Amino acid sequence: MRPTVAVIGAGSWGTTLASRCARHGSTTIWGLEDEVIEEINERRSNSRYLKGFELPTALRATRSMEEATRQAEVIVMAVPSPYFRAVLQQAAPFVRRSIPIVSVAKGLEPESLLRMTEVIAELLPDNPRAVLSGPNLAREIVAGYAAGAVVACRDAAVAEALQGLFKSGLYRVYTTHDVVGVEVAAALKNVVAIAAGMADGVGVGDNTRALVITRGLAELTRLGVAMGGEARTFAGLAGLGDLLATCMSPLSRNRHVGEQLGRGRKLEDIVAEMHMVAEGVHTCGLALELAKRHGVEMPIAREIHRVVHGEITALQAYRGLVRRPPGAET
Amino acid sequence: MRPTVAVIGAGSWGTTLASRCARHGSTTIWGLEDEVIEEINERRSNSRYLKGFELPTALRATRSMEEATRQAEVIVMAVPSPYFRAVLQQAAPFVRRSIPIVSVAKGLEPESLLRMTEVIAELLPDNPRAVLSGPNLAREIVAGYAAGAVVACRDAAVAEALQGLFKSGLYRVYTTHDVVGVEVAAALKNVVAIAAGMADGVGVGDNTRALVITRGLAELTRLGVAMGGEARTFAGLAGLGDLLATCMSPLSRNRHVGEQLGRGRKLEDIVAEMHMVAEGVHTCGLALELAKRHGVEMPIAREIHRVVHGEITALQAYRGLVRRPPGAET
Repeated sequence: MRPTVAVIGAGSWGTTLASRCARHGSTTIWGLEDEVIEEINERRSNSRYLKGFELPTALRATRSMEEATRQAEVIVMAVPSPYFRAVLQQAAPFVRRSIPIVSVAKGLEPESLLRMTEVIAELLPDNPRAVLSGPNLAREIVAGYAAGAVVACRDAAVAEALQGLFKSGLYRVYTTHDVVGVEVAAALKNVVAIAAGMADGVGVGDNTRALVITRGLAELTRLGVAMGGEARTFAGLAGLGDLLATCMSPLSRNRHVGEQLGRGRKLEDIVAEMHMVAEGVHTCGLALELAKRHGVEMPIAREIHRVVHGEITALQAYRGLVRRPPGAET
Repeated sequence: MRPTVAVIGAGSWGTTLASRCARHGSTTIWGLEDEVIEEINERRSNSRYLKGFELPTALRATRSMEEATRQAEVIVMAVPSPYFRAVLQQAAPFVRRSIPIVSVAKGLEPESLLRMTEVIAELLPDNPRAVLSGPNLAREIVAGYAAGAVVACRDAAVAEALQGLFKSGLYRVYTTHDVVGVEVAAALKNVVAIAAGMADGVGVGDNTRALVITRGLAELTRLGVAMGGEARTFAGLAGLGDLLATCMSPLSRNRHVGEQLGRGRKLEDIVAEMHMVAEGVHTCGLALELAKRHGVEMPIAREIHRVVHGEITALQAYRGLVRRPPGAET
């Protein structure tokens, strides 16, 4: 018995997850753009967001939120974090009270700095909330490469049900109860990705790069623990795993921004030629705001933030970091 | 007040550490090879192990163990793990009971599988024992790049004294009491380095490589915790940090071996053209032996071991790994 699934959001990751769910049970994908919805229904493809892949015939697409969600037994929210609340508000009137809402968005709500499951809790307080996260470049998963992720839910039975829904032989889904840790790690790891890219751009050695990534992850972990997460989640797939894929992938936008900053270029010039957003640029500010609220020191995030805002060069940031006396490791 | 230091071992890392200590206090380096000792004393260089760098004039070199150690207030053991016991046995009669012995060797004693501080404890049970480890490619440190390390000692006061001895503005030394964790992480991380190299060689995607490194580190952590270490040490400089430098450095021998195995080549052919040892090849066997003793599952180490020994191909190993059902992440 497979649940009826509604995937909200027809971008590359939403389309990937919807395709997987549609192989086993009734699945509907909701999107805003008429031409994307029509193409999925009529030509079994989504050339705007997932070019070159055939989608399963069982997958239905719709622009009607009511049609997508009324029968759903699981809702997957594949909407970018800035639009998460507005879209979920549209869905809320149709959603049954008992079904799990799974966030696959990486990021915090602007201004409020709420995690996505906190937004779900505000709008649908009775529904179980979960998160799916990990090193999951959508194109690689559609292409059939092995990958792993964690599904986090406070209710272990719901976590296991969702594990069964998403996992396959090549897509390894582990369970955890640490919702906070997974969301914070996913939302903030791009700060470290920019720092790692910057190390490449400045041309520091392998020792230094390893130092910056390790200590960067350590300071994210400190913040995550202060926010109620668990340290080991940051050493797992949602933290270290996602960070590694980002730091090693030549396709990573955040790593690229860091590298270009490291070479001494200005943020506005880098962003202008990218035609895409590198979320880590904003994440530095969010991380520092959270660090302040929770009384946590984040020297690496602070220096990166100053470089991003043109206050100092990447080289000066590196010099600044080594002026702090080291103490105990943890 | 800087202590009088004896560095035992005149390889690249011993010479690097001795040079640093000699800038601040009386330091003697001990080595076996006449021409290396003479060159250090007469020409302030060690062209065999650290070509192209000038050593401080204050550094004295000797072949006499008695001369090196009799006045020492700290002894740094920079000897490869297979020779560690024999060399320390030579030193033992001259070593004062109260002075710290610092191991900088990465590896376990063959056959006994003892950690280096356990070897020290057998030979010099009254001396405080410590370990220094981290992502420390010697040439980068001599060249003045920033790097970090941890010094581990059960006695916090000794750890802090050693931190003061080794650290500089660009070489960041953190303290920890987790001696076991640091030694196990340092000794076994090359298993994961080979796995990461193999991922490159097979041509799996960035998701898969991130998955293998993260889960590989998780299984090392499980073993380390079973042996009495702490999980967070494995997420620190001696674990993750050292692993990252190894996985990212094009110079890493273990990564190279993994990559060539991933391309389907045979171990003997790879090793024959390297003229150097890649310790990770032996480490797989050690890790599995320890896993057996401590009742820990290590599926990644097991598959890597089978590839190294030609029982299966790297591609088969990857397929084998994804056949295991995933459970809870930790």
